[in-house]
Amino acid sequence: MARRTGRRPGNPDTREAILAAARATFAERGFDAASIRAIAAAAGVDPALVHHYFGTKEELFRATVSIPVDPAELVPGVLAGGRDEVGERLVRTFLAVWDSPVGTAAVALLRSAVSNQWTARLLREFLVTQVLRRVVDQLDLDPAEVPLRGALVATQIAGLAMMRYVIRLEPVATASPDTLAATIGPTIQRYLTGPLDAG
Amino acid sequence: MARRTGRRPGNPDTREAILAAARATFAERGFDAASIRAIAAAAGVDPALVHHYFGTKEELFRATVSIPVDPAELVPGVLAGGRDEVGERLVRTFLAVWDSPVGTAAVALLRSAVSNQWTARLLREFLVTQVLRRVVDQLDLDPAEVPLRGALVATQIAGLAMMRYVIRLEPVATASPDTLAATIGPTIQRYLTGPLDAG
Repeated sequence: MARRTGRRPGNPDTREAILAAARATFAERGFDAASIRAIAAAAGVDPALVHHYFGTKEELFRATVSIPVDPAELVPGVLAGGRDEVGERLVRTFLAVWDSPVGTAAVALLRSAVSNQWTARLLREFLVTQVLRRVVDQLDLDPAEVPLRGALVATQIAGLAMMRYVIRLEPVATASPDTLAATIGPTIQRYLTGPLDAG
Repeated sequence: MARRTGRRPGNPDTREAILAAARATFAERGFDAASIRAIAAAAGVDPALVHHYFGTKEELFRATVSIPVDPAELVPGVLAGGRDEVGERLVRTFLAVWDSPVGTAAVALLRSAVSNQWTARLLREFLVTQVLRRVVDQLDLDPAEVPLRGALVATQIAGLAMMRYVIRLEPVATASPDTLAATIGPTIQRYLTGPLDAG
């Protein structure tokens, strides 16, 4: 579960109480509307203690869904190659994380989201506010199209995760990142920057 | 669970015993290698009784995964509009089934496949032997490319199912079949009949 730090003061259950309050608040209100103040109140602690344990709201959110990578660090790499390479780069970045030891936690989260409505809401919030919003914000897209483009990307990436790591359907389960970037990359590219109604 | 018929003779548990044996045999050996004879032996009944209760091996297989639609009936409709419309038609056919009351069972199967390795194997077998094989067999594709094309289609359709019915990510969760056919159809089309390495 959550790693404990040596400098944690007070009640040993405080950290877990904050995490439980954060999970409930993020799932009920969504990431944007959930405040550190409200989470602290639900946990019965001072807001300063929440920051002390978990840092920013983004960091607290990632702790609630046990996601060990920071999209804020990965997204610039996805965008670094320019607008026309974002599809392939997104697939490669996704595979680099999920194929690594860290991916085990990601697969567990995916399984949990399918069986638990609260985790599903948290994962949805994570996808929208932490991953997709960061990508689409920097691609100069029509704001009216952004939600659909982001959700379409999520369908393809979630399905890739399902088939490669959970259902283990061959040849996708063992295909090289090169093969998947070449075949699925253009799909992500079209969902992000292409026309939405023609092949 | 499974519907019981009035003409069922013998032990009331026979039907369930056959289903349990079929589930285990299909999951262990795969659809092609699992024979009615082996399933009957595992259930301790005569092969004729398996046919009497469940009909063909395809029908028995669908009963084991509780799939209430017959891909053999749906696939001709997907292919009826010609090779260049198969992507959109596959999306529309998928949505027509999953958006209907029958879709509840499909969502349950998807959830189960994520949490249970045996169900995952059965679903994989179902996808490959009952759905994808039927579609790709009739599209005159390079046989060497068929497994990858089929698995790519599975990633996109599974991800659509995840986001529309399980995670319920908007706007995909409530988008019209027209919108999804127009946006996701070209992806399916390219995975089936297009070049696999360019956008």
